[in-house]
Amino acid sequence: MSLHAASLTAESDCHTVAAAVGVPVPVLRDERNGDTVVRFVPKYADEALDVRIRWAVRGAAFAPVIIVQGGISADRRTVRDADGAGWWEALAGPGKAIDTDRFRVLSIDWLERSDLGDALAVSTTDQADALAALLTGLDIGCVHAFVGASYGAMVGLAFAARHPKRTRRLVAIAGAHRAHPLSIAIRNLQREIVRLGDRLGDTAAGLDLARRLAMTTYRSALEFSERCADAPVFDADDDHHHFAEEEWLKAAGASFVQRFSAARFLALSESIDLHGVRPEDVRVPTTLIGITSDRVVPLADLCDLQRRCGAAAELHVIDSRYGHDAFLKEASQIGALLVEALDHQGT
Amino acid sequence: MSLHAASLTAESDCHTVAAAVGVPVPVLRDERNGDTVVRFVPKYADEALDVRIRWAVRGAAFAPVIIVQGGISADRRTVRDADGAGWWEALAGPGKAIDTDRFRVLSIDWLERSDLGDALAVSTTDQADALAALLTGLDIGCVHAFVGASYGAMVGLAFAARHPKRTRRLVAIAGAHRAHPLSIAIRNLQREIVRLGDRLGDTAAGLDLARRLAMTTYRSALEFSERCADAPVFDADDDHHHFAEEEWLKAAGASFVQRFSAARFLALSESIDLHGVRPEDVRVPTTLIGITSDRVVPLADLCDLQRRCGAAAELHVIDSRYGHDAFLKEASQIGALLVEALDHQGT
Repeated sequence: MSLHAASLTAESDCHTVAAAVGVPVPVLRDERNGDTVVRFVPKYADEALDVRIRWAVRGAAFAPVIIVQGGISADRRTVRDADGAGWWEALAGPGKAIDTDRFRVLSIDWLERSDLGDALAVSTTDQADALAALLTGLDIGCVHAFVGASYGAMVGLAFAARHPKRTRRLVAIAGAHRAHPLSIAIRNLQREIVRLGDRLGDTAAGLDLARRLAMTTYRSALEFSERCADAPVFDADDDHHHFAEEEWLKAAGASFVQRFSAARFLALSESIDLHGVRPEDVRVPTTLIGITSDRVVPLADLCDLQRRCGAAAELHVIDSRYGHDAFLKEASQIGALLVEALDHQGT
Repeated sequence: MSLHAASLTAESDCHTVAAAVGVPVPVLRDERNGDTVVRFVPKYADEALDVRIRWAVRGAAFAPVIIVQGGISADRRTVRDADGAGWWEALAGPGKAIDTDRFRVLSIDWLERSDLGDALAVSTTDQADALAALLTGLDIGCVHAFVGASYGAMVGLAFAARHPKRTRRLVAIAGAHRAHPLSIAIRNLQREIVRLGDRLGDTAAGLDLARRLAMTTYRSALEFSERCADAPVFDADDDHHHFAEEEWLKAAGASFVQRFSAARFLALSESIDLHGVRPEDVRVPTTLIGITSDRVVPLADLCDLQRRCGAAAELHVIDSRYGHDAFLKEASQIGALLVEALDHQGT
């Protein structure tokens, strides 16, 4: 093992890494990707199952752990690493708001329905139970914080409600105790579009349109106004006009189809809609972050959650032209709030 | 012809109807359905065409005429008649806000692209030019008012900009000088869904889903919250959960497929997105009515329109839980504003 890139593998133990004498001491890193099998009873199954969880740890060896989970299309690569960009690298990494020189970031790939045997769906409580079981498997008693955004915030709330002793704080960004009924209606249509394509023999085309529809809910009306100034153009080949709005969304749909399966999309989209946590059951100090222009998670639901929360909860609201996606785009505003929340108990 | 149901046919002339002696004089009615061929150059065509317009008149014979036009799914039956309900009978009819004992309501079936020969699209200016040509054909110089809602409001604005001498006032409800880019994006997806179904062999299924998607934009978040309290139910036959939101939208989609063709939907939906009128060109006194919860036509656009309007324009804003569809649902609030607007010049 090289001392200068002192990375730990899943098989190694960070306690075995020692500094060399006479050379600058590198910061010891705990940089592992691992698979761990845990056992729990999924919400929509009858009995306990062995479930394989793919996880990643990135940060300073021995440092306090922060669970970081994003939206349904995020994966365990939260921080940039040698293999590529992390989905939240603007906010998590060395010297960032979630500072991997001070903390270790632990993230998992979301479970999908096929990971749960015959379960009829995958729930946010399943993801939360899997994370709690993983902590046990990794011999981590209690994490410094659970930071979740979008679907990750829903899972964080389920985690705080079911495993309150396993985290000191919850930071929930752009996610609430329920899915809003209007958002459910629109996600249901996204799934119906995928199923229509699937039934008629072009699943990818369905998934593409479903993702485009999702994009219309993720971004703000203002951003659409600013981006889409070009006049429509008639195309004789397909005999209709094309609009600037379409071109933008088309690119988003095409890229999604390359990296996401329809089955995974259906399972995780439905998981959002099945989500429900009683705010009163959340008995962990909580920082909520909402976005004024978020049409997926309306502020009213976050206000309701804050008021009813079973522990001290504060709600911060940021202004953004990015709608729900502000959790990915507003690194500076979100970062400042994260630093404050993570320093809450002193570290 | 019965005196008590003294209706005029398109072929008759209202001047020939006389009151009988010795019996109560019935209000003379002008109740005609007609087809008239007019000639104009459609915006997306190269030359003048003969275009057949299907129209209806309902009201007191000789009374001032009010053009009344609704959304893309409305037709010329605005007022209830012997054949069935009118799409706006809550607001137009004997003794209603648009009082057919005092006025005559003139409405047309929207032109669709197939009515315009080889034109590449049907525009709001085409509908406006068709209405102006129809007035000439019916020997009506200037109408008392043009009352348009939704797509009808867009056509009303085009009419006021192009034919300002043909109406004394414009009342535009839930429609602006442009389609909002976010709304364009979502309507574009509706059309893509129809085309997906069409390409894969089930146009009706595509049209159904497109209409469901449209419904999510027509109604308010609050109404979804209030209507959709039932818990989701797993259906083993199709192997996924069903949500209350879906059941409501499903009914709306199914009923639309029964009464609307895909071609008509594609043409009129695109027509909305191609719409554009310079507010400065609207040189007719105008009453604008907006709805706080309308996500299809945001209030900001109506404020912009009011400020830039080429003639005196007032903007009224009503509060409603029905979103864009408030123009169909809030008869009492809209009715009061209509009465005020129609009495503006005294009649």
